[in-house]
Amino acid sequence: MRAAYINETGPAENIQVGRLPDPVPRGQEVLVRVTAAAVNPIDTYVRSGLVAMDLPRPFVVGCDLAGVVETLGPEASRFQVGDRVWGSNQGLLGRQGTFAELAAVDEQWLYPTPAEVEDETAVAAALVGITAHLGLVREANLQAGETAIVSGGSGAVGSTVIQLSQALGARVLATTGSDQGKKVCQALGAVRAINYQTEDVLQRIAEVVPTGADLWWETGRNVDFDLALGALGEGGRLILMAGRDARPEFPVGPFYVKGCRLLGFAMFKAPAAAQRRAAEGLNAWLVEGKLKPAIDRLVPLEETAAMHRLQEENTLAGARTLRGKIVVRIA
Amino acid sequence: MRAAYINETGPAENIQVGRLPDPVPRGQEVLVRVTAAAVNPIDTYVRSGLVAMDLPRPFVVGCDLAGVVETLGPEASRFQVGDRVWGSNQGLLGRQGTFAELAAVDEQWLYPTPAEVEDETAVAAALVGITAHLGLVREANLQAGETAIVSGGSGAVGSTVIQLSQALGARVLATTGSDQGKKVCQALGAVRAINYQTEDVLQRIAEVVPTGADLWWETGRNVDFDLALGALGEGGRLILMAGRDARPEFPVGPFYVKGCRLLGFAMFKAPAAAQRRAAEGLNAWLVEGKLKPAIDRLVPLEETAAMHRLQEENTLAGARTLRGKIVVRIA
Repeated sequence: MRAAYINETGPAENIQVGRLPDPVPRGQEVLVRVTAAAVNPIDTYVRSGLVAMDLPRPFVVGCDLAGVVETLGPEASRFQVGDRVWGSNQGLLGRQGTFAELAAVDEQWLYPTPAEVEDETAVAAALVGITAHLGLVREANLQAGETAIVSGGSGAVGSTVIQLSQALGARVLATTGSDQGKKVCQALGAVRAINYQTEDVLQRIAEVVPTGADLWWETGRNVDFDLALGALGEGGRLILMAGRDARPEFPVGPFYVKGCRLLGFAMFKAPAAAQRRAAEGLNAWLVEGKLKPAIDRLVPLEETAAMHRLQEENTLAGARTLRGKIVVRIA
Repeated sequence: MRAAYINETGPAENIQVGRLPDPVPRGQEVLVRVTAAAVNPIDTYVRSGLVAMDLPRPFVVGCDLAGVVETLGPEASRFQVGDRVWGSNQGLLGRQGTFAELAAVDEQWLYPTPAEVEDETAVAAALVGITAHLGLVREANLQAGETAIVSGGSGAVGSTVIQLSQALGARVLATTGSDQGKKVCQALGAVRAINYQTEDVLQRIAEVVPTGADLWWETGRNVDFDLALGALGEGGRLILMAGRDARPEFPVGPFYVKGCRLLGFAMFKAPAAAQRRAAEGLNAWLVEGKLKPAIDRLVPLEETAAMHRLQEENTLAGARTLRGKIVVRIA
C-alpha cells in the first residue's frame, strides 16, 4: 500500500510517501480502505517528537480516517465488509497512523458513517468533533440555556465547539484574533464575536452576559486566566486542552470565591466507550446539519509533508492562513 | 444581651464586649441562647474589612454557634423551644454574627445537636466540618478506596479533612510544616505524614502511591501547583478554598494531559440545602466518633479581641501556636 510515514521523529521533511506492506487485521481489528484522512496539530507533535510516544517503525502519520471496511479480523464483530466507517485516535499510544491506503484499526475506534455524510466531512469532524463533544458533554456538562464563551472561535476546535454548544441548546460568544475570524464565528451562530486584538473583551462579554458566563473553552495555547475568570459567573467552568508548555499566573481568589471549576482533558486518553458516545452524538448532528466542519483544502497524499508544515505555521506560529481542516484524499 | 461587636471594620482592637439590644426572631428565624462560639479565619477577614461585606452596625462578630432554642419566629417550624442546635455561616452576607448571648438565626442554617455531642464539640466542628464535607463529597466526590493528600494536615481544616476522608473510606496522606504537625496527622490516622520543610514531598508520596493520588486538598494560602499536580495521578482532583491574593504559576500541560480537575469553592456560598446535607453527615460522624475536632482552648467572651489576634498570628503570620479551634464559652 502507499502511505505517508516516517522512520524517525523530526521535521516535516522526514515524512516520506511510498509503499509499505499491507497491514493484516488481527483480533478485533478491521482493515479499512482509507478514502480520506485529516491533519491535526497532534499529528505534527507526534511526528516531531514534541509529544514523546512509543512509535512503530516505520510510523504512518495521522489520527483521523474515513473509508470502507475491506476485511475483518478474526474477532471483529461490529462491522461488515463494505460498511462505510470513520474514526480517530489512531497514530497514538503505540498505534499505527492513518495516512495510508489501508489501516488496521481496532473496531472500538471506528464508527458508522451515515449515508448522508461524505467521507471528507466525517474525517474533518473526527478528532475535533470528539474533542468538542467530550469537553462540552462529559467534562463541562453544558446545559441548554447556558452561555459558553469560545476563546479562539475561528479555529478548528473553536468552530466545532461553537456549533456543538448550539446543538446542545446553549448560547455562544466567541473571541478571535481578526475581523475575518469574527465573520467566521458569526456565520457559525455566535451571538457575539469579539476581536481580542482590537476590542475590550470583558466589556463586550458583559454587554451580553452581565452576570458572567457558564463556560469558557480555551482553545489557545496561552490561556489568560484573569480574562477567563473575569468573564465567568458563579460556578463557571473553564476547559483547558492545549498549551503544554504554558505557565500562566493563576488568580486563586477569584477562582475559588466564585466556585469555579477548571477541567483539563486530553481527547486521546478518553476511554473508547466515551469516545463512541461522542461519535454517536456527532453522527446525529452531522445528519441534522448542526455540525458542518470547515474544510480548508483537499489534497493528495503526496502533499502530506507540506501540509504538516502548513499546520505548524498556523498552530505554532499563528500564520492564520487556514480556514478549516486540511483533508487528504487517498482513494 | 452581652456581645462581642464592632462599629467599624479594622484591627482586632475594634472589638468591644458590651450590651446590645436582644434580637427579636422574625419570619423563619429562631432565637438561640448561645452557649459556645468558635473563631474562624474568615471572622478576622470580615472584621478587618479584608473581605468586604455589607455589615449591620453594630456588627456582632463570628460565624459558628451552638446553644439552645429560646423562642421561635412566627414562621419557624424546624425546631422546638429547648432544642439543642448548632450552626454556621452567620456573620456573612449581611447576616448578624454569633458572639453574643442571643442570636436570631434563620432556621435553614441550624442543625440539631445530637445528645451525645457537647456544644463545644459541635461548634468546633461547624464551619471547618461543613467545609470539609462540601469539598470531599459535593465537590470532589471522594470514593472509598481512593487516596487523598491533605496539604496542611495539622490545621483546623486539614485535620478535619483527614478525619472525614477516612470516614468516607479513603486513604489519607498529609503534609505539614513541623514534626509536631506530623504527629498530629499520624494520630488522626494519616497513613503517611510528611514534613515539607525537611522531606522530599513527592518522593515520600510516591512511596505510598506510585501511580499518583486521587485528590489533593490544599488548605494553605500559597498552593504549589507543580507539587500538587506532581502528586496526582490520572484524573486527579485538586481542591482550592483559600489564598485570596495568591497568583502562583500554573503548569497547563501536566494539568490537562493528566485529565485533572481543579475545584474551587467558598463554603459560605453553598446553598442551605447543601450545607444541611453536610451537617447531617457531620452529626452522624460526631456520634460515631469518626470526627473529633481539636479544641485549642476555651475562653470567655471578653477575650474575643485577643483571640482574633491569636487566630491572625496563625493564619496570616504562620505562628504555629494553635493546636485546634478557639472556642468561646458564652452561657
